[in-house]
Amino acid sequence: MCRWLAYSGSPVLLDELLFKSENSLVVQSKHSRLGVETTNGDGFGIGWYGAQETPGIYHGTAPAWNDQNLRELAAHASAGRVFAHIRATTGTAVQQTNCHPFRYGRWLWMHNGAISGFPALKRDLTLAVEPALFPDIEGSTDSELFFFLALTFGLQDDPPSAVARAVGFIEETGRRHGIEFPLQMTVATTEGETTWAFRYSSEGRSRSLFHSTDVATLKLQYPDNRVLHELSDDARLVVSEPLGDLRGAWHEVPESSCLVIQAGREELLEFSPILATAPAAVP
Amino acid sequence: MCRWLAYSGSPVLLDELLFKSENSLVVQSKHSRLGVETTNGDGFGIGWYGAQETPGIYHGTAPAWNDQNLRELAAHASAGRVFAHIRATTGTAVQQTNCHPFRYGRWLWMHNGAISGFPALKRDLTLAVEPALFPDIEGSTDSELFFFLALTFGLQDDPPSAVARAVGFIEETGRRHGIEFPLQMTVATTEGETTWAFRYSSEGRSRSLFHSTDVATLKLQYPDNRVLHELSDDARLVVSEPLGDLRGAWHEVPESSCLVIQAGREELLEFSPILATAPAAVP
Amino acid sequence: MCRWLAYSGSPVLLDELLFKSENSLVVQSKHSRLGVETTNGDGFGIGWYGAQETPGIYHGTAPAWNDQNLRELAAHASAGRVFAHIRATTGTAVQQTNCHPFRYGRWLWMHNGAISGFPALKRDLTLAVEPALFPDIEGSTDSELFFFLALTFGLQDDPPSAVARAVGFIEETGRRHGIEFPLQMTVATTEGETTWAFRYSSEGRSRSLFHSTDVATLKLQYPDNRVLHELSDDARLVVSEPLGDLRGAWHEVPESSCLVIQAGREELLEFSPILATAPAAVP
Amino acid sequence: MCRWLAYSGSPVLLDELLFKSENSLVVQSKHSRLGVETTNGDGFGIGWYGAQETPGIYHGTAPAWNDQNLRELAAHASAGRVFAHIRATTGTAVQQTNCHPFRYGRWLWMHNGAISGFPALKRDLTLAVEPALFPDIEGSTDSELFFFLALTFGLQDDPPSAVARAVGFIEETGRRHGIEFPLQMTVATTEGETTWAFRYSSEGRSRSLFHSTDVATLKLQYPDNRVLHELSDDARLVVSEPLGDLRGAWHEVPESSCLVIQAGREELLEFSPILATAPAAVP
Repeated sequence: MCRWLAYSGSPVLLDELLFKSENSLVVQSKHSRLGVETTNGDGFGIGWYGAQETPGIYHGTAPAWNDQNLRELAAHASAGRVFAHIRATTGTAVQQTNCHPFRYGRWLWMHNGAISGFPALKRDLTLAVEPALFPDIEGSTDSELFFFLALTFGLQDDPPSAVARAVGFIEETGRRHGIEFPLQMTVATTEGETTWAFRYSSEGRSRSLFHSTDVATLKLQYPDNRVLHELSDDARLVVSEPLGDLRGAWHEVPESSCLVIQAGREELLEFSPILATAPAAVP
Repeated sequence: MCRWLAYSGSPVLLDELLFKSENSLVVQSKHSRLGVETTNGDGFGIGWYGAQETPGIYHGTAPAWNDQNLRELAAHASAGRVFAHIRATTGTAVQQTNCHPFRYGRWLWMHNGAISGFPALKRDLTLAVEPALFPDIEGSTDSELFFFLALTFGLQDDPPSAVARAVGFIEETGRRHGIEFPLQMTVATTEGETTWAFRYSSEGRSRSLFHSTDVATLKLQYPDNRVLHELSDDARLVVSEPLGDLRGAWHEVPESSCLVIQAGREELLEFSPILATAPAAVP
Repeated sequence: MCRWLAYSGSPVLLDELLFKSENSLVVQSKHSRLGVETTNGDGFGIGWYGAQETPGIYHGTAPAWNDQNLRELAAHASAGRVFAHIRATTGTAVQQTNCHPFRYGRWLWMHNGAISGFPALKRDLTLAVEPALFPDIEGSTDSELFFFLALTFGLQDDPPSAVARAVGFIEETGRRHGIEFPLQMTVATTEGETTWAFRYSSEGRSRSLFHSTDVATLKLQYPDNRVLHELSDDARLVVSEPLGDLRGAWHEVPESSCLVIQAGREELLEFSPILATAPAAVP
Repeated sequence: MCRWLAYSGSPVLLDELLFKSENSLVVQSKHSRLGVETTNGDGFGIGWYGAQETPGIYHGTAPAWNDQNLRELAAHASAGRVFAHIRATTGTAVQQTNCHPFRYGRWLWMHNGAISGFPALKRDLTLAVEPALFPDIEGSTDSELFFFLALTFGLQDDPPSAVARAVGFIEETGRRHGIEFPLQMTVATTEGETTWAFRYSSEGRSRSLFHSTDVATLKLQYPDNRVLHELSDDARLVVSEPLGDLRGAWHEVPESSCLVIQAGREELLEFSPILATAPAAVP
């Protein structure tokens, strides 16, 4: 599957997040320790909030370890909100429109996992997308369609509830087609202020997800760690797998939960699907 | 818009079709004489029937004039049935899954033109595709969706009628959304034996389309032309614009017609849309 | 050949330079008015000075008009020193290592034009590059080799003299191989503070080159032009062809001259080649 | 490093060689068992002898497992002489001009391994290339330069001797620069009739190399193996690592040897470097 990272805090050079740590995302693209696939070489993407209203996006189809433009961008761009994702396709084409994070207005979305039996479910899921949103679907992945279902169910108003409804709808659709465990997911979404990170799967054995500890505590614990001391106290990372072996730095996000990060404070919510009818299901 | 070429006859090296003639398709990609856009640099594709049951496809996203692999393939592959297409996008992404010709089983399809107001019509057109065909849609273009509508309306059984129904359905859908002239098209399709080429537009001012004259006559007329004398007498080309200035070599395909080419014989049919209801329109 | 732009002044969004003006560089990539080729679709590049010591570089091989990442970068990155270049190859491969601007340490270099008979001259020119610089040559173009010759002849100490010596050496090498007019060039180079722009050709009929007028005067002349009034008074552009039709905004750089721009002041120097022996010519 | 395969025998569909076997080259690109790197995702290439005088070449920069055009080509092209190579770069750029096999006239060349300290040696090695050959160098790799040195030392007349001289020259140049073990290599080269495969390294611990056994014997041993029985008796494969676990099918090529395959007969020669002076070393 894929690997991803969501950062919020004081502005950092993308380089620090993507290349410099011991088990950085780009290292993981070639040798993931915890992923289902060790190689995540099917494209990657970054989303970052800069001076503009909408976030910037960089999508590449070459393996992240080979993308010279990514190195340049990372060495010159800083941001206080960053999403980064490396892809291992579960079948759909390797093309920029299939790279995460996906964007709609100010919102970003990225996903590790899959909708099982996607080819069979795709039409029903597509029909359920709000018609006004439909023309903005650009690629062919399950992950982007999941995003548009979450938007359809109100992501911009109440993310935990909208994602719970989208998940409920996907599971119901899947089961109607005889799929036992229709969804496997860790998901991150943000509007540039708050980050919501979800860990869930229909079978209850979800992909790994971790978040970083309170930075102030870590600074006390590691008085000599340069990178830590450059971070603001409200800096937080949510990641598919830890970026290094720093003891005490990482907490696992529990199964079936939603982690909300805002201004350096974490809140952990229970997450369970809500059975929902697609508002657009009747043409 | 785009430029395309459909060849049937004795096997020729792709090179002869793509690179060697005076106004070859690759020349047209940079300096089209008759196209709406002079530059067709948004990808290209070739489909050819070789030893296998299904045709081979080569899709490139770089401009055709820069694709070194295309030159190699063209210099080494011969075929008796060739479709080639250079793309000037009308808005959708430049990616391999959006390159023509599109393929379904033994069938190839390529299109020059556009569905007007496509973003607004796309959902309705997508819903009309036969559900069993739906998972095979790979890209995001109007042209591929048009192909899948033609397949839905029976392309594999009766091409002229299926295309007429697909066109009728697109026009009806467009007009329901307030589009005055919903479709502009030249289209070629084949199953490897017969080629069907269509010229039509809702406004009655269609993109150019030409077919080559009887080769036997041309050979008499041009006793010294090497290329002509290598072609079999049943060789035929249908093209967006002539590949050279050979007098007498090209006939314009008239407005609102369908040219059928089989075993070196042409038949010209009138073409007009048939108002049709999508069999899958009711979910 | 190619088209390029060199900006210095208060930080501007790259978007303004690359996409928004009437005859912007990206518009020129498809429809150049003054270029030898109307299409410049063989890659492009940007160099910009940000927070780091060395400039950032973005090199793309797709046509500029199709590069989605370029649009994103341009919409989110601002800089006070920008080089941008769109390429029409004169024969060498379309690959990132052949895209301008080229970089060495803090220095950027871009070129419109060509070394005539380059395949025949390449070995002699390559041998003349300072051995310590040799391993940093990454691509295969005449333009990059020209840059490394200028570096060899002291670009970092005295740019006008180093370029004059490099030109003298190229011309002498060319003539030794029977090339009548070995060099055609407009060149821009910078270390991030001063910009040097050269216009010269062996035959005395050089590619076009323009620079913008004093911005303060333009602001008086066009009191309602939003873009002008956002620029600092020291802002200056040097371009292959004007970005718009604003009367009085553009001056042609004369034949055989070097324009030096620093802190909003222009100085125009005469330019003529200096016959030079390559310091490294004896192995 | 890299993985490669050289086939000679009755024409086979490339598919059989590249995709279908148990440990096919494309499988190896993601999970090599014997390579120094498990991932070989930095481009690939195929060379094949068809109807033309010179072989065709297909070079891709995406990982082989993602290249849709490679799948199409492999499914439709047959050849009796095939070179295929997947690349794991040792530092030079991932671009088509750096993909193996390299071609000169009728000759193909591919390499697994590296010249140690290449940036420091590159200039001296480049100077040694025959000036008439120099303009044909297209990329920036050690492997292509090695090919041009072999051509300089007479590859087209006496391959074992020319390679021995090129190796001697590289080692001597390396040692002059203080490199203890300048070369690591398995190499294959052919003019379309005979294949020469070399296994050698300065330190005497070379990358793995295998060749297939006599097919007639294998057919007796495996009466039910479909693929074997479609091969002609003179079919031979030389590979970096075995394509499957068929017992008795693979022999290791010994250290410091050259395997010559012609018309289904193998000859094993000892290989040792010959100290040589580059004919072009004096400018």
